[in-house]
Parts: sequence; C-alpha cells; structure tokens
Amino acid sequence: MSTFLYKADPVRGQDWRTVFARERPDVDFRIWPDVGDPEQVRYLAVWEPPEDIGQRFPNLQAVFSTGAGVDQFNLKAIPEHLPLVRMIEPGIVEGMVEYAVFSVLALHRDMPAYRRQQAQADWRPIPVQPAQERRVGVLGLGSLAQAVLARLGLFGFDCAGWSRSRRSLDGVTCYAGQEELDAFLARTDILVCLLPLTDETRGMLGARMFNILPRGAGLVHVGRGQQLNHADLLAALESGQLGDAILDVTHPEPLPADHPLWRHPRVWLTPHIASMTRPDTAARTVLDNLRRLENGEPVIGVVDRQKGY
Amino acid sequence: MSTFLYKADPVRGQDWRTVFARERPDVDFRIWPDVGDPEQVRYLAVWEPPEDIGQRFPNLQAVFSTGAGVDQFNLKAIPEHLPLVRMIEPGIVEGMVEYAVFSVLALHRDMPAYRRQQAQADWRPIPVQPAQERRVGVLGLGSLAQAVLARLGLFGFDCAGWSRSRRSLDGVTCYAGQEELDAFLARTDILVCLLPLTDETRGMLGARMFNILPRGAGLVHVGRGQQLNHADLLAALESGQLGDAILDVTHPEPLPADHPLWRHPRVWLTPHIASMTRPDTAARTVLDNLRRLENGEPVIGVVDRQKGY
Repeated sequence: MSTFLYKADPVRGQDWRTVFARERPDVDFRIWPDVGDPEQVRYLAVWEPPEDIGQRFPNLQAVFSTGAGVDQFNLKAIPEHLPLVRMIEPGIVEGMVEYAVFSVLALHRDMPAYRRQQAQADWRPIPVQPAQERRVGVLGLGSLAQAVLARLGLFGFDCAGWSRSRRSLDGVTCYAGQEELDAFLARTDILVCLLPLTDETRGMLGARMFNILPRGAGLVHVGRGQQLNHADLLAALESGQLGDAILDVTHPEPLPADHPLWRHPRVWLTPHIASMTRPDTAARTVLDNLRRLENGEPVIGVVDRQKGY
Repeated sequence: MSTFLYKADPVRGQDWRTVFARERPDVDFRIWPDVGDPEQVRYLAVWEPPEDIGQRFPNLQAVFSTGAGVDQFNLKAIPEHLPLVRMIEPGIVEGMVEYAVFSVLALHRDMPAYRRQQAQADWRPIPVQPAQERRVGVLGLGSLAQAVLARLGLFGFDCAGWSRSRRSLDGVTCYAGQEELDAFLARTDILVCLLPLTDETRGMLGARMFNILPRGAGLVHVGRGQQLNHADLLAALESGQLGDAILDVTHPEPLPADHPLWRHPRVWLTPHIASMTRPDTAARTVLDNLRRLENGEPVIGVVDRQKGY
C-alpha cells in the first residue's frame, strides 16, 4: 500500500483525510508527524517541506504544494526527478477573484476616501468615473490573474496585463517583457500585483515603478510580501504619487506592531487572506493529479524549476 | 419648434445640451430658468419639479425624472394624462452594480472586521466561507436589483430576492408578498435593500425585520433613507443582531454632524453615491424615449401612479 503524507495545517488535514477515505481507500493517508514507514511514502503534500526529502523518503514520486505559490520551497533541495506541483484549485481562484474585485471596486469608487470623510462627518460626493475609462492593470498573467481579469472585464474596466513572456487574452491588452513594462505602467490607474515571487520580482514594487504610474494611481498587492519595498510605498503615498494601497501581503507577516503601514490612513491591510486553499476542493484537485500520475497523463500545475513557478 | 426643458444640475445640463445639439438639432433644448415661451415646452426633464406643472406648461406631453426614483415628485401635482418616466439608463445600472457588489464582497470577506483589526495592529485571519454557502438576499426585484443579482450570481453566491408581486429570475430564489417576507429574511446572511420609497416601504428596515435575519447578518442599504429606522439599526448593531451595515442613503442627507451613525465602528457610510445618472447616457436614454413618444411606441420606464414607482 502506498502512503500519501500530508504536512501542513493539521485541522485542514482532517478534511483531506475525509476526502481521501471516501475516494481513495486504497491509499494510506497520513498526517505529519505520523509518517509510518518512510519507504512507503510515495506522495507528499506540503506547505513547509522537511529537509532532505530525497533521503528521508527514497521512493517519493511527487511533491504537491498545498498553496498556489512555491516560493516557500528551496527548489534545489527537491530532487530533480520529482515533479513539484502547485495548487491550482477552485477555492484559491474564487477567493482571489473576490478579493481582487473587492479591492479594484473599492479604489474605483473612492471607498478609502469616503472612509476618511466619514471619520470627519464630511458628506461630500466624489464624481464617479465610468468603468470604461478606468484603466486596470494586472502584473502577472497566470491562472489566478486570468480569472481576475475575466471577472473585472464584466464590469467594463479597461483591462491590461503584463507578463514576462507574451500572452494573449480576450479583452485584455497584453504587454510582455521588460521592454513593455513602462508602457503598461504608464496606462494603469489601478495596479494589481499577482506575480509569483522569484529573484526577478523581489523588490519589484518600488519607487521606479511607482513613478511611472499616473499620479494618484491605486495599488492592490496580492502577490508576495517580498515584492514590495515598504519604504518606497510609504514615500509614494506621502508624496501623492500613489493614492491608496490595499495590501494582503507584507514582509514579514505580520508586520511589527509599530510598523507605519498598520496605521497609515491610505493603506488597507489584510492578513494574507485574499486566497485560501479550501481543504475539500484542494484534496480533490490533488486526487485528480494523483490519477493523472498513475495513468501517465500530464499533471496540472507542474513547476518549471528554471522559472521558479 | 418644440422645447425640451431641463431642470436639474446645470453643469450636467451642459452635457445634455451637447448630446441634444448633435442628435436632435430640431429640438429647442433649454436649461432652467431659461424657459423661453412656456407654451412651447413639450417635454420636461427634472429632478425637483416646479409647482403647477400643468398650468405653467399647458402643452406639456411628458415628464422625465433625471433619477431612477420618483419619490421626490408629488405625483398628485402632475396631471394624470402626462406620462411620468423614470430614468433607466446604463450609467445608473452599472454604478449600482459596482456599489452593491463592492458592499456584498466587503461583508462576505469580513472587510469591516479587518479594518477594525488593522487599527489595533491585529494580524488575524478570519475563516473564509465559500460564496456558495453565503446567502445574499435582495429586497426589491426591479431593473437595478435584477442587474445586481445577475452580477452577484457570477460569484456563486446563494441568491434570493423578494418583491411585492411575484417575479421569476434565473438562478434566484424568488419570494413574494408579505406572507413570504419572513421566510426570505430568515435565510438571508447579507441583506441588500433596493426597494422604491412608497408608503409601504417607509420605515420597513426596522427592528421587526432585523430580528428575523440570522444573528450577525449584514445590511447594505441602497434604497431610500426613509426606509431605514436609524434607532432600530443602532440597537441591532449594539446587540450584535446585525453585524455590519453599509449605508449609501440616510434621512436626512447629510445626517447632522453629531449623529451616532457617522462614527459607529460597524457602519460604513457613503454620501448617496451608489448610483449616479451619467449625463451623456441619460440624455441618450431620454432621446430614445422621445423618439418612442413621437412614433407612438411604448415608452420605457413609465411610472405606475397607483404603485408609486
């Protein structure tokens, strides 16, 4: 009997266990640290991987991330021959769509300004701009970004996206590569960051980018904390170059209690909740990939080790 | 030459003038108080109507409201034979959809709670409920409500609606009449009020209704201020029977500076901006109805004087 080892939040692990028990009673589902015989472990679903995966589990056949990103992995520590699989599941996608649409609508309709006005008992309408004239730009055009752009498009926003390599999406003006980044930024009133964390994107959201955006642009950051330069963000908010920022990720998480972003009047901060894996749909997604592995079919979400995502 | 008289915000009136000049140069478009010869006035577009409409403009053929509602009109003061036409135009609809989706997503994803946590530097995720398990209920099933429900349905919410007379909408559980109101309320986690103001709906959002909602339910009020009993709302928020309220309308508007709703931690207040008529699309909508009148075709949005909307 082959073992499927789960090493992440143990409460959610119980939901996984229920799904596995029902759909794959032939698999020995175990929750870390109840490893059993390490030689029996064929599959590992993990948020923070243990060290020496290859030596510890010599018969491992695949590693599944329980999250959409894999930047918490040291890719070099995972044997080359093992497929490393990202989590692409409906719970993650819908959560991200909800958060991103909420945030873009909040900035589009001046909700941070209205919250400040309310604190002053100031009843003063701000002229509304039609969605058709509001230019939303998404950094990153992966599966989450595509779902976000499709939903934003239904509101009539003028949508664009940027990615490292060229993409083509219906209803979205697509920019690609470093040479088109500035043109993308210059036309973007509300910037949504959905990039994966790589050496190239670390610290990318900083003064250089902010200065190219139209004055007063809004920022929605749902990528990774380390992509954002906090000092540059604070300076851009102070100068008015950025209008408002809605941040779901920071570095570190949580920020120290005295960090200025906590109480900045132009910052809305949430505790990395934009998109959370739903244990039931996540387990089903992994089971589908397990079946694909067993049948020799292509697995969905395999990480490109060169690109890092 | 027939005169079209506009009596509302004069700045927006200039946008109407531009559209009329281009599309109907045969019509003498005038902005109040520049009435010209009252006997020439055939059509009146108005927010707050002048008194004695019938006597003042003896040859009037139709009255157009520049807003979605007509509760600012004294219906008895408008001669019976004149069609009174509400504004149903894409600008109003899209603005309302944006505001309602923003508000429902805000309550669904606990954004008011996260804003309170942020003020305390408290980084603490709140478990996410799937949209499929979140029961949204819309009071009123007119054209605005239908557009709001259609967009909310795309997020997967469990949607219901209530109206005075029976409606049938795809993907929406429809309740009708006083006898089904309580069942509608009992299944509604997030209540959106989009009712017209009539004698029956005045003060309707009060203790009786709040007490039937599930404990901790959220309220989005985008109807009319006089439908909401402020004292009952405050009591329901204090007791925890209501969780959070997002209000775009109050009575009066604005509230006095010392009104407790201004600074209540569970209330988000905006200055009646959910939906604003866009002058360009509004003028085009009226021109379309003008053509229908001239050709003897049915006019869109004629008010039923009995119902009052």
